[in-house]
Amino acid sequence: MKLLEDKIRKDGVVKDGGVLKVDGFLNHQMDIELFDEMGKEWKRLFADVPVNKILTIEASGIGMACIAAQHFHVPVVFAKKAQSLNIDGEVYTAKVESFTHGRVYDVIVSKKFLGPEDHVLIIDDFLANGKALEGLIQIVESAGATLEGVGIAIEKGFQPGGELIRSKGVRVESLAVVESMDAENGVRFRG
Amino acid sequence: MKLLEDKIRKDGVVKDGGVLKVDGFLNHQMDIELFDEMGKEWKRLFADVPVNKILTIEASGIGMACIAAQHFHVPVVFAKKAQSLNIDGEVYTAKVESFTHGRVYDVIVSKKFLGPEDHVLIIDDFLANGKALEGLIQIVESAGATLEGVGIAIEKGFQPGGELIRSKGVRVESLAVVESMDAENGVRFRG
Repeated sequence: MKLLEDKIRKDGVVKDGGVLKVDGFLNHQMDIELFDEMGKEWKRLFADVPVNKILTIEASGIGMACIAAQHFHVPVVFAKKAQSLNIDGEVYTAKVESFTHGRVYDVIVSKKFLGPEDHVLIIDDFLANGKALEGLIQIVESAGATLEGVGIAIEKGFQPGGELIRSKGVRVESLAVVESMDAENGVRFRG
Repeated sequence: MKLLEDKIRKDGVVKDGGVLKVDGFLNHQMDIELFDEMGKEWKRLFADVPVNKILTIEASGIGMACIAAQHFHVPVVFAKKAQSLNIDGEVYTAKVESFTHGRVYDVIVSKKFLGPEDHVLIIDDFLANGKALEGLIQIVESAGATLEGVGIAIEKGFQPGGELIRSKGVRVESLAVVESMDAENGVRFRG
C-alpha cells in the first residue's frame, strides 16, 4: 500500500537491532486518516470472506482495528496481555514470548466474545517473529471459530513470522512488507 | 447520552465491590457503532474549543478515542502504562495508582508528541477515583499544553473522581453518570 510505504519512508526511523520506529503515526501517536485508508484497503483485500468479528491485541493494534471495523461493520475484541481482575468467567489463553520486552506473557480473551459461530479477521500493527500472532491464532482455534485471515500493517519480511504463519495455510495480507532496512539507507520494501 | 445509558442498562452487569462490567461493548469487545455515536456527542459538547490532539491511555481508552478523533479530525496519542524499550528519547511521566489492579504504575508520553502548541482533549472510558485522569492531566501540564477538556464514557458519580477533577477547573463531559448501582436493582443514572 503506497500511502503507508510513503509514510514509513518519510516518518519512520530505523534504529539499531532491527527496530523500525513508527511511533509518530502508528503505535504511540496515531494518524487516524491513515488508519482509515488502511481499513479501506483491508476491506478491499478481504471483500470475499464473511468476517463478523475483528480480533486484535492490546495496545497498539486497537486503534487501527477499530477504524478498520467501520469498513466491515463488525465489533472488535482485543486480547489482553495479563490476567485482569475485571475479566471474569472463563477465558481462552495463550502464552506469547515478546522480543521487544524480553518476557513471556499470557494473552487472554473472554469465552463470552469468541465462539464457533465467529468468522474472525485478526488485525495487528507488526508481524516480525509472529509470536503474538501465533497466540491470537491459537485463541481463535480454541474458540472453534473460523479464521478468515490476518491483516497486518507492517511486516518485517526479513524476519520469520510471515513465512511461519503462511506455512500454516493462514491468509496474511500485509500493507507494507519491509524487505530490508538499516540506519544508513532507510527502508526498502518488497515488490 | 441516552444511547449509552440504554446500552449499560441492557448489557452492563453490576458486580460486588462497585464494579460495573461493560466488557461486552466497551472495554474488551467494542461496539464500534456505539463508539461513533459517542464520538459525535463529544464533538457536539466540545464544538466550542480548538482541539488539535486527543490524549488517552492504554488500553481501553484507545478504541473510543480513535473513533472520536474522526469527528475532530485530529491525531490520537495514547499514554503507555510502563517503560517500554521502544519509547526512546525523553518522556513525560506520571505515577498512577490503580484500584482495579492494586498497584502503582508509570504513565508515559513521549515529549515528541505533546508540547506547548497543543490543545488537548482527554478521552477515557471510566472516571471513578480519577487517578488515571490526574496522571494524564499532569502530563498535559508538564508539556505546557492547553487542556481543553475531558470526555468520559462512564462516570461513577458515587466515587470522588468527578468532583476532584472538576474542582481543579477542568471541564469534564461524561456521557453517562452512574448515581448508584447494586446487583439487585441495577444501575441508576444521574439527571
